[in-house]
Amino acid sequence: MIDAKEVYDVTDFLSSHPGGTKAILSLAGQDATEEYDPIHPPGTLEESLEKSQILGPIDPSTIATITPTSSLTSSSPGKGGGESGIPPLSEQLNLDDFAITAEKVLSPKAWAYYSSASDDLLTKKHNNTVYQQILLRPRIFRDVRDVDTRTTICSSPIAFPVFVAPAALARLAHPSGEAGIAEACGREGVLQCVSTNASLKPEQVMAGRVSDNQPAWFQLYVKDDRGKSEALLKRVDALGFTAVVLTLDAPTPGKREADERVQNAGSTVSAASGEGMQEGGGSRGLGKALFAGTTPSLTWEDIKWLRKHTRLPIILKGLQTHEDAAMAARKEILELGVTGIVLSNHGGRAADTAPPPVYVLMEIRRHAPEVFNRLEVYVDGGIRRGTDVVKALCLGAKAVGIGRPALFGLSGYGVDGVRRVLTILRQEIETAMRLLGVCSVGELGLGHVNTRALDGLIYQEPQELSGGEVKAKL
Amino acid sequence: MIDAKEVYDVTDFLSSHPGGTKAILSLAGQDATEEYDPIHPPGTLEESLEKSQILGPIDPSTIATITPTSSLTSSSPGKGGGESGIPPLSEQLNLDDFAITAEKVLSPKAWAYYSSASDDLLTKKHNNTVYQQILLRPRIFRDVRDVDTRTTICSSPIAFPVFVAPAALARLAHPSGEAGIAEACGREGVLQCVSTNASLKPEQVMAGRVSDNQPAWFQLYVKDDRGKSEALLKRVDALGFTAVVLTLDAPTPGKREADERVQNAGSTVSAASGEGMQEGGGSRGLGKALFAGTTPSLTWEDIKWLRKHTRLPIILKGLQTHEDAAMAARKEILELGVTGIVLSNHGGRAADTAPPPVYVLMEIRRHAPEVFNRLEVYVDGGIRRGTDVVKALCLGAKAVGIGRPALFGLSGYGVDGVRRVLTILRQEIETAMRLLGVCSVGELGLGHVNTRALDGLIYQEPQELSGGEVKAKL
Amino acid sequence: MIDAKEVYDVTDFLSSHPGGTKAILSLAGQDATEEYDPIHPPGTLEESLEKSQILGPIDPSTIATITPTSSLTSSSPGKGGGESGIPPLSEQLNLDDFAITAEKVLSPKAWAYYSSASDDLLTKKHNNTVYQQILLRPRIFRDVRDVDTRTTICSSPIAFPVFVAPAALARLAHPSGEAGIAEACGREGVLQCVSTNASLKPEQVMAGRVSDNQPAWFQLYVKDDRGKSEALLKRVDALGFTAVVLTLDAPTPGKREADERVQNAGSTVSAASGEGMQEGGGSRGLGKALFAGTTPSLTWEDIKWLRKHTRLPIILKGLQTHEDAAMAARKEILELGVTGIVLSNHGGRAADTAPPPVYVLMEIRRHAPEVFNRLEVYVDGGIRRGTDVVKALCLGAKAVGIGRPALFGLSGYGVDGVRRVLTILRQEIETAMRLLGVCSVGELGLGHVNTRALDGLIYQEPQELSGGEVKAKL
Amino acid sequence: MIDAKEVYDVTDFLSSHPGGTKAILSLAGQDATEEYDPIHPPGTLEESLEKSQILGPIDPSTIATITPTSSLTSSSPGKGGGESGIPPLSEQLNLDDFAITAEKVLSPKAWAYYSSASDDLLTKKHNNTVYQQILLRPRIFRDVRDVDTRTTICSSPIAFPVFVAPAALARLAHPSGEAGIAEACGREGVLQCVSTNASLKPEQVMAGRVSDNQPAWFQLYVKDDRGKSEALLKRVDALGFTAVVLTLDAPTPGKREADERVQNAGSTVSAASGEGMQEGGGSRGLGKALFAGTTPSLTWEDIKWLRKHTRLPIILKGLQTHEDAAMAARKEILELGVTGIVLSNHGGRAADTAPPPVYVLMEIRRHAPEVFNRLEVYVDGGIRRGTDVVKALCLGAKAVGIGRPALFGLSGYGVDGVRRVLTILRQEIETAMRLLGVCSVGELGLGHVNTRALDGLIYQEPQELSGGEVKAKL
Repeated sequence: MIDAKEVYDVTDFLSSHPGGTKAILSLAGQDATEEYDPIHPPGTLEESLEKSQILGPIDPSTIATITPTSSLTSSSPGKGGGESGIPPLSEQLNLDDFAITAEKVLSPKAWAYYSSASDDLLTKKHNNTVYQQILLRPRIFRDVRDVDTRTTICSSPIAFPVFVAPAALARLAHPSGEAGIAEACGREGVLQCVSTNASLKPEQVMAGRVSDNQPAWFQLYVKDDRGKSEALLKRVDALGFTAVVLTLDAPTPGKREADERVQNAGSTVSAASGEGMQEGGGSRGLGKALFAGTTPSLTWEDIKWLRKHTRLPIILKGLQTHEDAAMAARKEILELGVTGIVLSNHGGRAADTAPPPVYVLMEIRRHAPEVFNRLEVYVDGGIRRGTDVVKALCLGAKAVGIGRPALFGLSGYGVDGVRRVLTILRQEIETAMRLLGVCSVGELGLGHVNTRALDGLIYQEPQELSGGEVKAKL
Repeated sequence: MIDAKEVYDVTDFLSSHPGGTKAILSLAGQDATEEYDPIHPPGTLEESLEKSQILGPIDPSTIATITPTSSLTSSSPGKGGGESGIPPLSEQLNLDDFAITAEKVLSPKAWAYYSSASDDLLTKKHNNTVYQQILLRPRIFRDVRDVDTRTTICSSPIAFPVFVAPAALARLAHPSGEAGIAEACGREGVLQCVSTNASLKPEQVMAGRVSDNQPAWFQLYVKDDRGKSEALLKRVDALGFTAVVLTLDAPTPGKREADERVQNAGSTVSAASGEGMQEGGGSRGLGKALFAGTTPSLTWEDIKWLRKHTRLPIILKGLQTHEDAAMAARKEILELGVTGIVLSNHGGRAADTAPPPVYVLMEIRRHAPEVFNRLEVYVDGGIRRGTDVVKALCLGAKAVGIGRPALFGLSGYGVDGVRRVLTILRQEIETAMRLLGVCSVGELGLGHVNTRALDGLIYQEPQELSGGEVKAKL
Repeated sequence: MIDAKEVYDVTDFLSSHPGGTKAILSLAGQDATEEYDPIHPPGTLEESLEKSQILGPIDPSTIATITPTSSLTSSSPGKGGGESGIPPLSEQLNLDDFAITAEKVLSPKAWAYYSSASDDLLTKKHNNTVYQQILLRPRIFRDVRDVDTRTTICSSPIAFPVFVAPAALARLAHPSGEAGIAEACGREGVLQCVSTNASLKPEQVMAGRVSDNQPAWFQLYVKDDRGKSEALLKRVDALGFTAVVLTLDAPTPGKREADERVQNAGSTVSAASGEGMQEGGGSRGLGKALFAGTTPSLTWEDIKWLRKHTRLPIILKGLQTHEDAAMAARKEILELGVTGIVLSNHGGRAADTAPPPVYVLMEIRRHAPEVFNRLEVYVDGGIRRGTDVVKALCLGAKAVGIGRPALFGLSGYGVDGVRRVLTILRQEIETAMRLLGVCSVGELGLGHVNTRALDGLIYQEPQELSGGEVKAKL
Repeated sequence: MIDAKEVYDVTDFLSSHPGGTKAILSLAGQDATEEYDPIHPPGTLEESLEKSQILGPIDPSTIATITPTSSLTSSSPGKGGGESGIPPLSEQLNLDDFAITAEKVLSPKAWAYYSSASDDLLTKKHNNTVYQQILLRPRIFRDVRDVDTRTTICSSPIAFPVFVAPAALARLAHPSGEAGIAEACGREGVLQCVSTNASLKPEQVMAGRVSDNQPAWFQLYVKDDRGKSEALLKRVDALGFTAVVLTLDAPTPGKREADERVQNAGSTVSAASGEGMQEGGGSRGLGKALFAGTTPSLTWEDIKWLRKHTRLPIILKGLQTHEDAAMAARKEILELGVTGIVLSNHGGRAADTAPPPVYVLMEIRRHAPEVFNRLEVYVDGGIRRGTDVVKALCLGAKAVGIGRPALFGLSGYGVDGVRRVLTILRQEIETAMRLLGVCSVGELGLGHVNTRALDGLIYQEPQELSGGEVKAKL
């Protein structure tokens, strides 16, 4: 993606590199393109360096390249089949198949970045298994010849109730990166939410769309330097995005040890767990590096700031309690143009042992059901089957986001892989609806699911028998 | 089963072959009997082709045969023991033993077709383990010298409360196919329900019976072309069937990936998951192929249509909610001659995460107990022990169906294997009754089982605190 | 145990041999002592054959012996350590250690007979794990210097609240058999319950006692031929037994497949599962063979018969419901001299999925607590730790029985092994009591255990919303 | 630690050696320093032997040393990395990593002593997994830029709510022993509780502190010989300890079989399980040996005795029921200077199947919430993650103790290892607080955790329907 080889003087920048000094020094005097490219959103150099630090072009043939073993890019991304050793796309029958293939195709660093989650991966595993505990209740004698999976989210019509959740660094999976996902979404009729940490500029991602009126959302991490975020919002408005999704579940990055370990083991960086460790310094995994500069101090007041800098509908992402859902559904928040919330635990990458979104959905249903009438409620995390999607809808979700499955579809197969992931989901949704005796997503309701295995696990307000001390804590 | 080798011109038929064009073309110019035979109900050719497309007989010695490796038929079906490598029948002590042997005896395709279930096999596994969570409550000081396992279902007396559930393609297991099962049922005094997708014509199956008044049910998939179903019903009435069982839990086939994968891997067909996949075409697993032409649009009104075309009692199969059980027990439905319902999730082959039938039994017990007084209630799926049968009866079932166990008994052992499967079940039922202190099936009741481990998992109507939106969905 | 080699003519007896004809014929013309001895209670020949069928003595040096590989007796029974390959007794630290050693020491047939249980072993596993789900509630600041584990059961003082439950065929473990267990019990101050199916005559077992007033119970299987049982009871009374324990949980033997399989595999017998199997004939596992002649038709009325033929206190064994416990505690039953009940599922060898005795204990506690005031309540099955014993006592048991652990202690180590098993249990009980802050068994109560993990699983009467049909079944 | 080699005459002492005679005799005539040193608190010789039994110094070059294979000290304790084969400290990312490394670094005996727990390790495993069943409830839109983890326990300010729980024999891990832990605690701003069974004298441990006013607690096992305990308390007061922690959960040692087995296998000692075993004698594992002389007869009255012999605040350790917590919170106990309680099951090393401390915390919350207002409540056992700490605080704990993790940090890495363990915990606590939306430990409350998975398992008073017998037992 970097067309001309340029030489930079990064001496002054070294100490402020989020990935640590070692990562840069180990590549000094060499062509760093291959390492740099898939993990830095385009524009990073321009934003980080002064023009005076660009020393000028160099003849590529005169410089050393780094060894292939340290490459972050994955071997043999391609169409599948043949000599590459990955299975033909037609043999990928479900979303888990794509994860298995991705682990083979991706570099260890890319796999670690995508698959890792916080601490002991408990929330990630919980996300992945919780839908299996909800039973379906198929009805008989319904005419299900014509099943219609279409719905509308945030005023945009989509072919089935799925969107691609924001995920960083798609170019680790495939050179087409987030632009490839954009194309796949356009062709399959769904919507993409583009991450602030995408490995392509928003302009490049939007250029991947199939048509100019293909809807897309932009996910925002607010920076400590608000000016940067305001400038970004201006670009977002101009590019035709249809909503801004404000991420709230990661005021600090979770501890993704697999990500840290693989960086540790790499030749170019040395890892240590988190700031403040006496042995600190060096890099800290891609996850923590990407987080640099993100503000940890947002409050409800900041929605006013956001409103001032975008004309788009606002969606709040990362709600994990019924209290916060009810807060978001207050009149004064709705009047600021908040139209939806995404129940999410950041794919298990923020607080470990945070609840799976379906718990939060059920908690809202029990304690603050008015939310469903005032806001569109979305969920993401752990969706692997069409039945998962259908269950979320039965419980009140308007649509569900998929994160890793889209990246795994991209791995090794590019645009076609993402399309097949989406097609499989759509077909599984259709089958689930038919077997439930339902013809349109609007018909799906509480009567179609048996949630008894989870009912006893949903949060209840503690009923204290005594004590100022405890009440005060709440 | 096809006596004379005939040559057919299938050019015009190619595009309408449910199994895809490739499956046919790869056998062009060869003797396709061995591949064709066990997966096509006799009569398929006659129904599908015009007489003009039958080109005439051929001398078998002049044609090539397909290679044994691609054969669907299983190696060494026989009496067990000896050089075949399968254990002597007397060493098969329980139903699981038969499954283990079947996996060895059957071809990979046949095993995949029989053992596969939808998606992640969750419902299949749930079926197989749910009875273990119900505890027995043996009573002491009962004279159990004489235990009588006989009962009556749909007016037919049977030796013990078990019937063979409808399952397709029994000739994949053994050349005697469904006729062999008929003979075994006759000899052991139980009842067979013959599938529309049997690999023998109903006439051939009924010819396998031990006597002309051996009762048998016919399971019906209604075709989009109602005329075909009406013609079939006419034959069914004439053949001496004693009830029609209308299947309702599969308005569309479930996604049986093991079945699809093994077809994928085969030499003669190429698989893809389901209709509408852009890479589609070719075959899609035996399960989906068999389903072709089945109507997805039945409603309660269609019982009237069925009534018009059969004089037999009607049993509805595939109910999975108390609401539908209560619907079936309405006066207007009973008056149409509906005498029973089969609680079934299609052996886990329709909606994955559908409840095991015992959940539905308990749900009806809790929410619509009047059903037990108006209809005979049967269950199938996951029965592996006599104690399973006894538990179902304690909860209100009149009898239970076994599907895979009958096919596994047939695999490698033929009629004798099915007989031994039935004998083992009968003896286990007798033992369970004796140990419970019970002498007749009519004595079995709620007091003989402890279902506390399941009680909290049975569906309850959601009690909504608010909201038009949710109510509307119900 | 058979001192002089005698020759028998068993031609007429062949067809009535409970173990099948094949078992005998395969040993014809040889010295059958080694095969015959450990599985037949002494006196069997005398009871089964006419005097005329004893042909006379033979010179042992002139007859063939059976091959060692088919021997039922175990290799190297002895004191442990040294060349035998079994660990020194001092390294057996807990009851599970003894099970591991027993599996090594015993012949496959003996191990199969001891360790097998019904069907899928679900009740056996449940017995073994259920105590782990009950939590202890240790109290602090209690003076536990002097802990007294003594108690009294059925008027006999014992050193700690444990007895050896009746188990058949102890000579499969060690030549000292049940007499060895008697000695160990005497030395450790506990009580043995001797089985009708012991591999020694009651006279021989009682001779093993340490003193003449060492208490012992006799467990009775009532025979179809009541005269035989009456004769036996007369001997029992004369021998100084202190109670008769009437077994009620096995009116028919459970299906112990491991036992059947190992017989199947043996050279001298061929197995088939249960009576009535068309392939039947031959032997059926030791468990079923032993059961031959036992009556399946006892009723509450038979206690009067038993009372007539013994002067000893009567204990009923095998109760599994609160209803039957309440029946046993009725005035008319108490007046017949019934003083205690043993909650037991026959070590998982009768009805599979029967509840563990601790469930029944809790069920009685909830639904019929008066039973504890009228009868002594014992439990057996699954006891492996001193904490298990203490928990049973907290819930109301007066003492607990151990079955397999005593046999496993006997295996390889003889009397000393059983003594160590008992010593370990006593020490573990002492430790558990000290850590609970309790000095005597009478102090143990409901406040020392947290049973919440089980509370929701204990049987409740079903509350029916409707229906004559269901009520009628109860 | 023993500077000059001395020769002792231990003939008279032999029989009273808690570790058995064999352990001593096998080392007779050799230099026993290496075996003796890490498992005996300094001063043991002086306390145990008369002066007359010290025969005088010897030239070390003239004596035999024991073989390295029997050494209790671990191989290669050091800084990690390099030739030692243990990973660099910077690669230890979480507390489990340290456990893995410790198992490699420590001698089998040391590992067995540290890692072993009672009976079947059920309570140990329960401790380690119970926190995972509590879900976090992260709140959004909170300004968490500045998070303050500081708190105060027993009037001492600490940097974060963690203390090092008392654990014996730290010199098995590293020569710096408990003094090394003292230094690490000082540098990281937390508090150490020093064990009576430390492998260094209290004077030596306190000398390891970073400054003279670094707070420290002393854990007391009261000896049968109260005079010894009184003398010890005098030294404790003089040394600047800030509280006395009275251990109450181990009036007798638990049965730690792994510890016993490894002693059994050693060349110098032979094991048997517990006192009273007829094969007894010899040694019994380090755990039991250390316990020798500890009194099993403390009662609530003994707090008065303790008060008389110390001027320090008193903390009671080992409470496991709400009843005892309520007892400790009575006015008369508070007036004796009891300021806190530690809910603890001795790391699973006392009563197996005792509840994890978090159960007790919830039990107190439900049945005796006033305790939290009157006493500081601490917990220990099973803490492995910062989220575990945060959850305990949400439920009412003031701070948590870590035992094994500190020893595992010491293993192979010395002071730096313990520091890193503490740093990791502090950083994980900070991250958890930020992700919960909380800036200070005082804000953590019941609203931040979902305990529904445990709510049904917390002890409830049994509601008896009847019976004097049962009531009396309580």
